[in-house]
Amino acid sequence: MDLKSYLREKKEMIDGALEEFCPQPEGPAGVLAKAMRYSLFAGGKRLRPILCLAGASTVGDAEAEKAVLPVACAIEMIHTYSLIHDDLPAMDDDDMRRGKPTSHKVFGEAVAILAGDALLTEAFHLMTDEGSTRQLDPALLLRAINLIAASSGHLGMVGGQVVDIESEGKQVDPSLVEFIHTRKTGALIHASVSAGAMLGGGSRDEIKAIHLYGRKVGLAFQVADDILDRKGDSETMGKDAGSDERKGKITYPSVLGLERSEEIKRGLIREAIDALGNFDHRADPLRHIAQYISERNK
Amino acid sequence: MDLKSYLREKKEMIDGALEEFCPQPEGPAGVLAKAMRYSLFAGGKRLRPILCLAGASTVGDAEAEKAVLPVACAIEMIHTYSLIHDDLPAMDDDDMRRGKPTSHKVFGEAVAILAGDALLTEAFHLMTDEGSTRQLDPALLLRAINLIAASSGHLGMVGGQVVDIESEGKQVDPSLVEFIHTRKTGALIHASVSAGAMLGGGSRDEIKAIHLYGRKVGLAFQVADDILDRKGDSETMGKDAGSDERKGKITYPSVLGLERSEEIKRGLIREAIDALGNFDHRADPLRHIAQYISERNK
Repeated sequence: MDLKSYLREKKEMIDGALEEFCPQPEGPAGVLAKAMRYSLFAGGKRLRPILCLAGASTVGDAEAEKAVLPVACAIEMIHTYSLIHDDLPAMDDDDMRRGKPTSHKVFGEAVAILAGDALLTEAFHLMTDEGSTRQLDPALLLRAINLIAASSGHLGMVGGQVVDIESEGKQVDPSLVEFIHTRKTGALIHASVSAGAMLGGGSRDEIKAIHLYGRKVGLAFQVADDILDRKGDSETMGKDAGSDERKGKITYPSVLGLERSEEIKRGLIREAIDALGNFDHRADPLRHIAQYISERNK
Repeated sequence: MDLKSYLREKKEMIDGALEEFCPQPEGPAGVLAKAMRYSLFAGGKRLRPILCLAGASTVGDAEAEKAVLPVACAIEMIHTYSLIHDDLPAMDDDDMRRGKPTSHKVFGEAVAILAGDALLTEAFHLMTDEGSTRQLDPALLLRAINLIAASSGHLGMVGGQVVDIESEGKQVDPSLVEFIHTRKTGALIHASVSAGAMLGGGSRDEIKAIHLYGRKVGLAFQVADDILDRKGDSETMGKDAGSDERKGKITYPSVLGLERSEEIKRGLIREAIDALGNFDHRADPLRHIAQYISERNK
């Protein structure tokens, strides 16, 4: 399959749906929707929602993929909120993201915090919208939302971010790097593809296999990111390269070295693809995405 | 009925459930759960979750009330997150809340922001937890979550907060005060009692009546708060009295004067109680709570 066309096609599908689902900037609170849109349409690759669609089409059909579109878009909203809050002066204090000024640089800190809050809330509003999700089974939908919430909250993304921030510039146990990465980045990536497979009507065994794929790919994604930050140049990254090191962030290369990190990344990708062994060609997008995560250079 | 015992009994029920539902501070991310708990158990009156329980028992029975307990607790988590973020230096910059130092004063800004994020996320995690919500109909539960999310997000609480912050110290259209209050405080109060009535199995007409009650009581609550801030002393308020005025906040007293604000408040409470005209004694808690909101002095 041609992964480039696949990713382009799915990205367009998601961008179109996000355009429809995200509120328009109108009325006295218009600046809020403006800030939500600014970050939501700041050039994201839509990897998480694409994984959600691919999870659904691996176990279902094109209809299944279409049915999970609101959930896929909600996941992108959650991802976007996390980037806005991560960039805040009190957190990573980043001025640029994907080559553009960060939300608090454009809208000020108060509106940036609130735009993040609103995107997180809107994600759950969208996933429970009767009109958009009428093709999904209510009990299954509740279970998928529960997984997404678990992966985003104190046991997942937010928990990882707290430990990441608290260990910055400190001598910490190297085992913490896996704790941070599986939660901060891995959990939502895992939930994206798993929610897709659950809502696509996957069997217990299918969902189990895709769970495993998601865990491996989620961790591999962050290891690849760490390696890129160490090796990359600012232009292809769209943010300052080497910024992890300057901030004293705990990363795979800083704990285990570059070479060992590359090995770990390749091992995780191999395990992810192996997990899909019992699927037919419908799992090809997931297989190719795993490879892409390993080889991407920005 | 004896409102004081009623409120005490329901508060104990909610505190017990929150104790069980809120994560324990353990593991590397323990500080996060610690911060979540610090604010969640900082002496809140639990008005919103009590309204949720009362909404359920007005249309159902004691079992209905017990069944909505996780949803009631989730609403208190959402309320608590909003207080943590409102108090941040970039927002209202408050050092004290309910007579205790605010979250960012104790844990620092980064952890305070993340504790808010985690409480908001945990609310949706709890409401979709299969074990806790097994007595509730999945389709109805999705509808209730949707209402709660709508009332908390860009069209509700967060939207109100944006306009509140943006209009601080500015000459703005007095009509904005209702826009802000119905969203910033009113929406979640309205959603609390309405979600209770929906999940308690209320008929269409019953839910409609309780919707109206919720709208009136929600707005009355904030008008009463404005009046208290203007008249109250710091001791009974647990925060600086007169702080709205010093910050140039747009409030009912600042726009319409104290006397007219009192009239509006009394009118809203009357309309709220009138909306319950067709209910029997089971609506007595809601009637007494409306009166209490009007007459409270802290």
